[in-house]
Amino acid sequence: MGTPPPTPPDVLDTHDLDEPATDPGGGLVRLRFDISYDGTALHGWARQPGDHGRTVQADLEEGLARVLRRPVSLTVAGRTDAGVHATGQVAHADVPRAVWEEQGAKLVRRLRGVLPRDLAVRAVREVPPQFDARFGALARHYVYRLTDTDAGPEPLRRADTVGWPRRLDADAMAAAAAPLVGLQDFAAFCRRREGATTIRTLLDLRVEREGDLIRVFASADAFCHSMVRSLVGALTAVGEGRRPPEWPAALLTATERSSEVPVVPPGGLTLLAVDYPPDDELAARAEVTRAVRPT
Amino acid sequence: MGTPPPTPPDVLDTHDLDEPATDPGGGLVRLRFDISYDGTALHGWARQPGDHGRTVQADLEEGLARVLRRPVSLTVAGRTDAGVHATGQVAHADVPRAVWEEQGAKLVRRLRGVLPRDLAVRAVREVPPQFDARFGALARHYVYRLTDTDAGPEPLRRADTVGWPRRLDADAMAAAAAPLVGLQDFAAFCRRREGATTIRTLLDLRVEREGDLIRVFASADAFCHSMVRSLVGALTAVGEGRRPPEWPAALLTATERSSEVPVVPPGGLTLLAVDYPPDDELAARAEVTRAVRPT
Repeated sequence: MGTPPPTPPDVLDTHDLDEPATDPGGGLVRLRFDISYDGTALHGWARQPGDHGRTVQADLEEGLARVLRRPVSLTVAGRTDAGVHATGQVAHADVPRAVWEEQGAKLVRRLRGVLPRDLAVRAVREVPPQFDARFGALARHYVYRLTDTDAGPEPLRRADTVGWPRRLDADAMAAAAAPLVGLQDFAAFCRRREGATTIRTLLDLRVEREGDLIRVFASADAFCHSMVRSLVGALTAVGEGRRPPEWPAALLTATERSSEVPVVPPGGLTLLAVDYPPDDELAARAEVTRAVRPT
Repeated sequence: MGTPPPTPPDVLDTHDLDEPATDPGGGLVRLRFDISYDGTALHGWARQPGDHGRTVQADLEEGLARVLRRPVSLTVAGRTDAGVHATGQVAHADVPRAVWEEQGAKLVRRLRGVLPRDLAVRAVREVPPQFDARFGALARHYVYRLTDTDAGPEPLRRADTVGWPRRLDADAMAAAAAPLVGLQDFAAFCRRREGATTIRTLLDLRVEREGDLIRVFASADAFCHSMVRSLVGALTAVGEGRRPPEWPAALLTATERSSEVPVVPPGGLTLLAVDYPPDDELAARAEVTRAVRPT
């Protein structure tokens, strides 16, 4: 994977770069974790300095440490915000091969025994040392669920469905979404981060209504901070008829975050899946996404 | 609808007959309520004497009384047990026409404002006075969700999905389910109730696996107490290989509850829907289901 660049590279994912992923090397094996959580009671993925409540990373690393009897450090594909859920989060960590060979078959079941019920490791498997959950990801897939019925969200889905107080025109939202797809500067939809690019390839932005439920599917190579929730916020303004369908695409000419774009609540957002290249292309992909992009 | 019989008739639904439905008559309008709930924190449908915690009926009647400023008494299609959920529960109540005409358009939204978030009235509408949520029901449809993966239930679906500790052969379960369908005496699967028949028409009992999730769909004219959870319990014994696929059907010859049939936990069970005849057949249907059946 080569030497990490001396200055923090621009990254395609949100937030800061903590530390470059390292090749596990001698005696270590790289593991891929497939992770689900109900984010309602969680303060996002990332460990927080100080006591800001539970985080996915802290709970998982603590659970792994208990089961494996050694500290484990996770690198994640998508650093979800407080209240955001996941059914397809991915992380990697390096552990001694002897530990993996001894614990591997029982690891998922043992983690279930120590993790809170709002957090689950769906699968753990060995991957090539070049696998990098963060820098190797080709695409992230999210869904945002909202309902505009007077009755509010289905009680059994209230954790991941936002009740919208006004009726939404899903067809208008779909029309507004289509021209956002592509390689664009999403500055208007990104929380500002010093020195970071806001150029992303939005692979898909799709609005589907099924009865009272509206789902917005968003896929990109990576999302900047609060981007999905800002895109959905812009679409809801169209859905309510407060903005014309052309409005969200017109914001693509902006060079900084627009205060006119509402950010919808985190509870409707779920990270569904992260795509990676086949094993034999892993090393090359990690190099590409480490390179600094022009901002 | 005629005079109620002098002795409590046998009923197709579970539990006791409280009181016969009455024709709303002069100045009253009969309303149909479509209801959803996450039963996790609820002690079942029925109001309990004494303080046994929240029930769906008590919460709903209290919410209706607050919004309509008068007592309201609900009659329900399926008296679900503690911990059981619903996305398609149905109840009826009679309210003064003047109240309905004044409040009707706002009722769902106002109920949302007073009900806890694990309980929702999806819709309210006027129905003919012969509509009877309990005695008029043609069929009840349930689903039971369980997963046999080491990772346990998806965190976002943990409220309505039971984690099964052993692997289940869904094909064997499906084979065991098929011969149970039809008009049968389900005594082996019913909690005993004095003077009540255990004969039911099981319209459907279907087992579907989708990845780690197994869903058992059960439909009947009505279910006796704990019947769905006993049927699923018998199927899990087959799924684990502890019983042959012929075993559940062989129990149909029993004349009383079998202690060999496990009852699965309530959290996996959801009432999906209740079927009613078209409006012009309502009165006739209510008469039929009030008649005493031979036990």
